Amino acid sequence: MSKSSFLIQPNPDTPGLSQPVEGVNETGMPVTLPVVTEKPITLFLNQQEIVTTMSLGDWVAELAVGYFLNQNMLKRNDEITGIEFDDDLGVVIVRTAHETDFEAKMKRKIRTSGCAEGTAYGDMMERFDEIKLNKNACFKASWLIELSKAINTAPSLYLSAGAIHGCVLCQQDRPLVYMEDIGRHNAVDKIAGWMFLNKATPHDKVFYTTGRLTTEMVIKTVQMQIPVLVSRSGFTAAAVDLAREAGLTLIGRAKGKRFIALSGIGRIVFDSADAADVIESPSHQRAVQRDER
Amino acid sequence: MSKSSFLIQPNPDTPGLSQPVEGVNETGMPVTLPVVTEKPITLFLNQQEIVTTMSLGDWVAELAVGYFLNQNMLKRNDEITGIEFDDDLGVVIVRTAHETDFEAKMKRKIRTSGCAEGTAYGDMMERFDEIKLNKNACFKASWLIELSKAINTAPSLYLSAGAIHGCVLCQQDRPLVYMEDIGRHNAVDKIAGWMFLNKATPHDKVFYTTGRLTTEMVIKTVQMQIPVLVSRSGFTAAAVDLAREAGLTLIGRAKGKRFIALSGIGRIVFDSADAADVIESPSHQRAVQRDER
Repeated sequence: MSKSSFLIQPNPDTPGLSQPVEGVNETGMPVTLPVVTEKPITLFLNQQEIVTTMSLGDWVAELAVGYFLNQNMLKRNDEITGIEFDDDLGVVIVRTAHETDFEAKMKRKIRTSGCAEGTAYGDMMERFDEIKLNKNACFKASWLIELSKAINTAPSLYLSAGAIHGCVLCQQDRPLVYMEDIGRHNAVDKIAGWMFLNKATPHDKVFYTTGRLTTEMVIKTVQMQIPVLVSRSGFTAAAVDLAREAGLTLIGRAKGKRFIALSGIGRIVFDSADAADVIESPSHQRAVQRDER
Repeated sequence: MSKSSFLIQPNPDTPGLSQPVEGVNETGMPVTLPVVTEKPITLFLNQQEIVTTMSLGDWVAELAVGYFLNQNMLKRNDEITGIEFDDDLGVVIVRTAHETDFEAKMKRKIRTSGCAEGTAYGDMMERFDEIKLNKNACFKASWLIELSKAINTAPSLYLSAGAIHGCVLCQQDRPLVYMEDIGRHNAVDKIAGWMFLNKATPHDKVFYTTGRLTTEMVIKTVQMQIPVLVSRSGFTAAAVDLAREAGLTLIGRAKGKRFIALSGIGRIVFDSADAADVIESPSHQRAVQRDER
């Protein structure tokens, strides 16, 4: 998979995303290493301050739009008239043609699990039952091998500094848009915002995440109308239940050729027949488990 | 380190914490595996509904008290007169001798990063500058080896089902209280609640977490007045800055004998002199990086 196959991929050299930090190692020797940034970004929808999120600080317009969409504060047919960002204040303002009052929505705040945040869970679920995911979408097991390879070898803050999540919008075996952030809830919102702003079709896409599959991730993927959600990490029982309810294809513990599909299996083509040949050493098994935090 | 050295440790066989889930693997073969539960728990402080969090669902009294403490909604000298839990509704009510109105606090909600949640960041920071951590506390590098061994080999949902975080309150080389949850913000709150309800002294303790060291984790550890915070995962630059400001000993990437100390180095005794002998293979290096999500 050539580097150019991504439409958007991380640029770990972007100034401000990481910085050298000095410490000492276990022997007391000084070490300097690249460490990711974490800064507050406050999101406004028109006049209304909605939330402040701790973020990597890139793709802020996409982050804001995606957050509002995934919280059902912004509808798919809403018209965005402007997006302003004040870098010094860390403030993003999304302006729409029609103003809305979210005070009622803000009264009930719920904190979700995993790498999650203070989201209005009740509101997130509002449209959940109405959404019909594309039944004709398919996902080939062999694509996953290509996707994992391309994503895992692409230069990223994850590889250079660590301590970060990645979310990737994919089409068949091609990773299209790879966004990173401290919390995966931000990375997924950036993808949602990018899709909205670029009028991307969700029905033939695959959503890949490095993070665990919790209810929040399932809800957001369904809201985004993407029929397939894949993670290299594990999953919760409630996330599996929700995925089955929505008819979402849910794939977890995707490592190399291996994966476990929990829901929407009818979309999967099991074409990596030699998958069972993959040698899984005890240390690999341990690494897989370790990664499932 | 014998099993009995823990005061509290995970019991992965507790009914309801995990359940068998059926899926298929990459070859289309059916598999059944244990998967952690994730359910909504709503926290009330007296008459006031504060938040609903997606949780593993155990140690709910500790979770509620710890959440209120870490949000500065409950003060260290507040008197708790009762804690009720309705399992069917998933509601915990913490009652105090003196009622308080948190409406003002609820107006400004901030979502924090990493495995975080909708917390009132401004409020969390309220007491931050006033807290003086114990300067005389010490932390020996050799303790970390014992702690890691005891924590990593203790039976846990992490080992049996994965997809979960752990936080451990430790004293010297002894892990005392090991709590797990889907989000590490919940696991840390459970520890805070346990400490309050059991009048545990923070000044000689060490806080160990499997999760990344974000600003939220630093703030909560300082609020808990624990002078040493250790993680097997990575850290953000902002977390390092906050730890330095508070004089917190911050240790990240703790694996075997290895670690990187970023702050409060004056408390550390570098007594694992042969630490540099640890062989770190490329695959180990990769596993370490993988874990830093």
